[in-house]
Amino acid sequence: MKHAGVKTAVIGATGYSGYELARILLRHPKVAPPLFLQREGGHATALDATFPGLYKTTNGHDLKLHPFSWEMLTEHKIELLFLATPHEQSREWVPEAVNRGIRVIDLSGAWRLHVPANRKPYGFPDNEGPQVEEIQKIAVYGLPELHRLDIAKAKVIANPGCYATSIILALSPLLRANLVDRSAGIVCDAKSGVSGAGKQPTPKTHFVQVADNLSAYGAFDHRHGGELLEQLGLKDGEITFVPHLLPIPRGILSTVYLRLSEESSEAAIHKLFEEFYASSPVVRVYPPPAFPQIQYCVNTSFCDIGFKLASDKKRLVVVSCLDNLLKGAASQAVQNMNVMYGWPEQEGLQ
Amino acid sequence: MKHAGVKTAVIGATGYSGYELARILLRHPKVAPPLFLQREGGHATALDATFPGLYKTTNGHDLKLHPFSWEMLTEHKIELLFLATPHEQSREWVPEAVNRGIRVIDLSGAWRLHVPANRKPYGFPDNEGPQVEEIQKIAVYGLPELHRLDIAKAKVIANPGCYATSIILALSPLLRANLVDRSAGIVCDAKSGVSGAGKQPTPKTHFVQVADNLSAYGAFDHRHGGELLEQLGLKDGEITFVPHLLPIPRGILSTVYLRLSEESSEAAIHKLFEEFYASSPVVRVYPPPAFPQIQYCVNTSFCDIGFKLASDKKRLVVVSCLDNLLKGAASQAVQNMNVMYGWPEQEGLQ
Amino acid sequence: MKHAGVKTAVIGATGYSGYELARILLRHPKVAPPLFLQREGGHATALDATFPGLYKTTNGHDLKLHPFSWEMLTEHKIELLFLATPHEQSREWVPEAVNRGIRVIDLSGAWRLHVPANRKPYGFPDNEGPQVEEIQKIAVYGLPELHRLDIAKAKVIANPGCYATSIILALSPLLRANLVDRSAGIVCDAKSGVSGAGKQPTPKTHFVQVADNLSAYGAFDHRHGGELLEQLGLKDGEITFVPHLLPIPRGILSTVYLRLSEESSEAAIHKLFEEFYASSPVVRVYPPPAFPQIQYCVNTSFCDIGFKLASDKKRLVVVSCLDNLLKGAASQAVQNMNVMYGWPEQEGLQ
Amino acid sequence: MKHAGVKTAVIGATGYSGYELARILLRHPKVAPPLFLQREGGHATALDATFPGLYKTTNGHDLKLHPFSWEMLTEHKIELLFLATPHEQSREWVPEAVNRGIRVIDLSGAWRLHVPANRKPYGFPDNEGPQVEEIQKIAVYGLPELHRLDIAKAKVIANPGCYATSIILALSPLLRANLVDRSAGIVCDAKSGVSGAGKQPTPKTHFVQVADNLSAYGAFDHRHGGELLEQLGLKDGEITFVPHLLPIPRGILSTVYLRLSEESSEAAIHKLFEEFYASSPVVRVYPPPAFPQIQYCVNTSFCDIGFKLASDKKRLVVVSCLDNLLKGAASQAVQNMNVMYGWPEQEGLQ
Repeated sequence: MKHAGVKTAVIGATGYSGYELARILLRHPKVAPPLFLQREGGHATALDATFPGLYKTTNGHDLKLHPFSWEMLTEHKIELLFLATPHEQSREWVPEAVNRGIRVIDLSGAWRLHVPANRKPYGFPDNEGPQVEEIQKIAVYGLPELHRLDIAKAKVIANPGCYATSIILALSPLLRANLVDRSAGIVCDAKSGVSGAGKQPTPKTHFVQVADNLSAYGAFDHRHGGELLEQLGLKDGEITFVPHLLPIPRGILSTVYLRLSEESSEAAIHKLFEEFYASSPVVRVYPPPAFPQIQYCVNTSFCDIGFKLASDKKRLVVVSCLDNLLKGAASQAVQNMNVMYGWPEQEGLQ
Repeated sequence: MKHAGVKTAVIGATGYSGYELARILLRHPKVAPPLFLQREGGHATALDATFPGLYKTTNGHDLKLHPFSWEMLTEHKIELLFLATPHEQSREWVPEAVNRGIRVIDLSGAWRLHVPANRKPYGFPDNEGPQVEEIQKIAVYGLPELHRLDIAKAKVIANPGCYATSIILALSPLLRANLVDRSAGIVCDAKSGVSGAGKQPTPKTHFVQVADNLSAYGAFDHRHGGELLEQLGLKDGEITFVPHLLPIPRGILSTVYLRLSEESSEAAIHKLFEEFYASSPVVRVYPPPAFPQIQYCVNTSFCDIGFKLASDKKRLVVVSCLDNLLKGAASQAVQNMNVMYGWPEQEGLQ
Repeated sequence: MKHAGVKTAVIGATGYSGYELARILLRHPKVAPPLFLQREGGHATALDATFPGLYKTTNGHDLKLHPFSWEMLTEHKIELLFLATPHEQSREWVPEAVNRGIRVIDLSGAWRLHVPANRKPYGFPDNEGPQVEEIQKIAVYGLPELHRLDIAKAKVIANPGCYATSIILALSPLLRANLVDRSAGIVCDAKSGVSGAGKQPTPKTHFVQVADNLSAYGAFDHRHGGELLEQLGLKDGEITFVPHLLPIPRGILSTVYLRLSEESSEAAIHKLFEEFYASSPVVRVYPPPAFPQIQYCVNTSFCDIGFKLASDKKRLVVVSCLDNLLKGAASQAVQNMNVMYGWPEQEGLQ
Repeated sequence: MKHAGVKTAVIGATGYSGYELARILLRHPKVAPPLFLQREGGHATALDATFPGLYKTTNGHDLKLHPFSWEMLTEHKIELLFLATPHEQSREWVPEAVNRGIRVIDLSGAWRLHVPANRKPYGFPDNEGPQVEEIQKIAVYGLPELHRLDIAKAKVIANPGCYATSIILALSPLLRANLVDRSAGIVCDAKSGVSGAGKQPTPKTHFVQVADNLSAYGAFDHRHGGELLEQLGLKDGEITFVPHLLPIPRGILSTVYLRLSEESSEAAIHKLFEEFYASSPVVRVYPPPAFPQIQYCVNTSFCDIGFKLASDKKRLVVVSCLDNLLKGAASQAVQNMNVMYGWPEQEGLQ
């Protein structure tokens, strides 16, 4: 019976990622209908008041947004907590959840970075105390393709950034095989749809500002840069990352440029990628010379990867696409849950 | 009186670039209302049958599209011929125009490339004869910011490619000052609106294919690559160029990544660009850290350039934007005409 | 076991509606993996060559497109045939399928219209012979909300037009309750995304033509007009229907204006709609004053309906939204199949 | 010399309409470079800080935004004041401007409505005093096509609403010729781009909310409804107006449905429209059966009108398009200025 499933709660379901998470969890065969909580107090409200598209879709499930309280988590015997909250909030709540024996998958950037310098853009205070440091130590970077074993037993999952996911998956097979000439530098030109900027209305997300436009931003200093360094084992300066804002609602395409440390062939590189992701059901490696496109992966949990080698057999372009709200956020969180509970990685994601 | 202006003809005004060219020439204070010709024979048709937006906008000007004939050019005493035709057609007609003493501005790629190997993607036949070779020799690459003097006296102008214009203008100041570490390689990640793909309906330009999507194409082998090599004086392999198709009607943004050959500062680079383009009215250099955006330059004749230097003082990102139908085609053609006739470079373009 | 399911075939899976149909059928719990056929002969090709987004999504199902032949249908013991083909083709193949005892759900407009004059826009020849006439007689208009009982036993289903579905569902409760003042005329202003125009590239579906634009077309003479007359029991002149082309990939919003024959209240009308659709799981009636929006129903099988009454208690605006490729085509076809086989109407559609 | 031109000031140039107004006035041959004022106090700022697209486009004109003060208007001898401010602000400032002998063109809705009941949606206080009433009395509705003579001598122009302009121009020729059967009711289904909602970021103008979507709003109670009643001489209930939000930055298309009071022909109606607008250079009547499209008129000062008559010779559909920021706001304001000064109506608008 469905209600016998794992008891989860979601805080922050009114944002874009939280909403996608809610939709997935409501259909997940091994999870009980989640408890939805809002950060603010006040009265419980209906989730379809925020998302009218949910109207009449939930067959009697409780789709209320309840005001958050620890008591409510206890009362509902919540085992697993999803946080789709601002990172400051996550920094505060995750330690308490761990105290209470609740496992956490945090979609914010609060716990992704282990090198203090890389956390600087987040502006956390200097002395956060020993418990925060402890959590930071045990938090596992939730990219299943790289950290399955650690995720399986983790108490706290730091769900990766959307840009970071697309770039790390594009580069890991090559870097781990020592095939990249790091001295030449790696260039990551990434483009994201607007939902990546969040639901809060700002001048930057106004339709008239975004439509018919493209803009670069955050060159050299985007927050996800630290994830690239730590997860790819690179030194500052070896990788250049510039994000761009696309006039589309969702989807990321990252174009990654590098020079191989030795001549290779498209066939060899294809084999390398296929083997690296052989047991990764949500990474699709396209055979060269096909490049993935954003539309192939939008509304799916896939990260799609394709590549092309120059005639000099050294310059390589890797194109990596994903849905920033799914593999870049919500479906990745569920994938992490699946790994934590020993379920098939794609459970509930197809 | 306006009709005393220079007598021009436009072949191919039914395409996107030709249409923009028509609009500019009709308002240009030093040009008589142009003669519009269509490649196909048959009857003359009204230009506003093809472009209903022109309806009632032309105050009695003859906006007919006449079937092309050399006699008509003679009869109308055409001095300057604009070709917005496929490159194969330009390859055929330009020699005859030169024979007849008509100066030509060719918007196609037919004459842009002086190194035979670079022309390969165009598929011209092997033995085109001595006259074609002669034309190829005298054809001037019509980028006024680099070749003003040659353009002024040219008989044949090869109007540059849209991508090439944006990238060459982003790189020329740095390369000419020998500030680029070529061994590290230059990466040009370019993104263009759909009008760059032409007006012919194809599966790739279908709305449903393009909307909500982004795709990379032509990696390492796009036709404009040869223009980059020749105009920037680079060797194959020193520059990597990957274009992308944006879900917008018009506009190009090129993000160019390079490593400086020596440490520099944003102030120094800004000064270098400002000086390089001091007498170039349609290049706008944005002070760092501002990046241009596509929407700033769409429907204008500007190429906008901005840049940012990494904290290592060596890695530089240059962002360059233009309207592919204007500075990337039609307004650049008119700018070339202005230089050819000794008029102010922005005449008729504001 | 899944393969024990109903044996279906789809002809025309390379179009937009056919593709959605393929996606739904492949996940439908009561249907065996369908046989996909292409109208053209030649070799079988992989479906994901046409739709790269299907790459690696089908767990070993045969996703080949086979050349059509009647023998193949026999060999695979096909019971139910979906036709996502041009109407001329359907007009030819459906009689033969019926001869062979295969039930048919035809997504084209071939069999929707029973009054010969209404079929005029389709240009069928005059003497199609007795068998075609016979099929025309037995073909059931496949709108389950109106014709459940007939659909259950039908041999041939004429799947409704997308515009027609949205308008008929908006008006049926009111017209059947005799609440509409027909003498005042009903106005249906409908707006559709571009996928409704099909996958064939044309000047009208070119991205540059559609983006940033809106256009009206087919005023008074759109093919779906006949469906409105026949299904709503109206006389020519009692309803005015003007479709518009929206710059979005998919979705229809119809705004329907009418005058009630007597004063009413929003509460009464809401009750009327709720009762009319009480047993219709894919029609969602929004409580006034909420209007549905296209984004609520895109990628779902819902038709969403909302309305507002003027202060004169007589003028009523009904807004009706659906996904033209789903409730306007593919999911409606599957809904019809569900009714034909006595399964829950939403089976495989959630 | 240009600076000898009329001395104008613009308050509110940082909004969309104000920006377009600034662009037009800066190029207007009979107007001195305007004084730009901001409602807020503080320091003067550069206009291109708000609109980077203006960077380097102004050849030394003072493009500063100065804090508003009456003294500054006096000091600069301003004769004509454009207000692109919220209606509450206009309600306060226009009387003082009139006191000071400055003519005003107000782009807000403050003074458009002469019937108090129609002003209700604006929420003005009850007792605004005799001077406000006086201004209300002398304010002229600034639709040159209907009120040229009054505009010429007006002290205060109430620039019309964007929706209202498109609908009034579509209906006036027919209503003034008594050709409309008012008892059947007129339906105006209007669709607008997002810039019509203003520059303030809100959940409704967030890119993710608008893209791929269409929504109806303000049915029966939109503020522009009062303009329709007053300008068209209709009674409440004779016209139904429902606006919709289009996923495009700018442009309005209104589809107007009516029944003629007697049978007519497309030729007769075309003649009626052509004659009605014979001296109106910015209204383009398209010959039937051509409908205008938004893209034909965007970035122009035109209102485009087309129509189609049903085979019953009575039901008529009129389609009317304009750019909501130009003919719906800024270019209409300049057109009014041209009429006020006796200049050609299109001066500075081509």
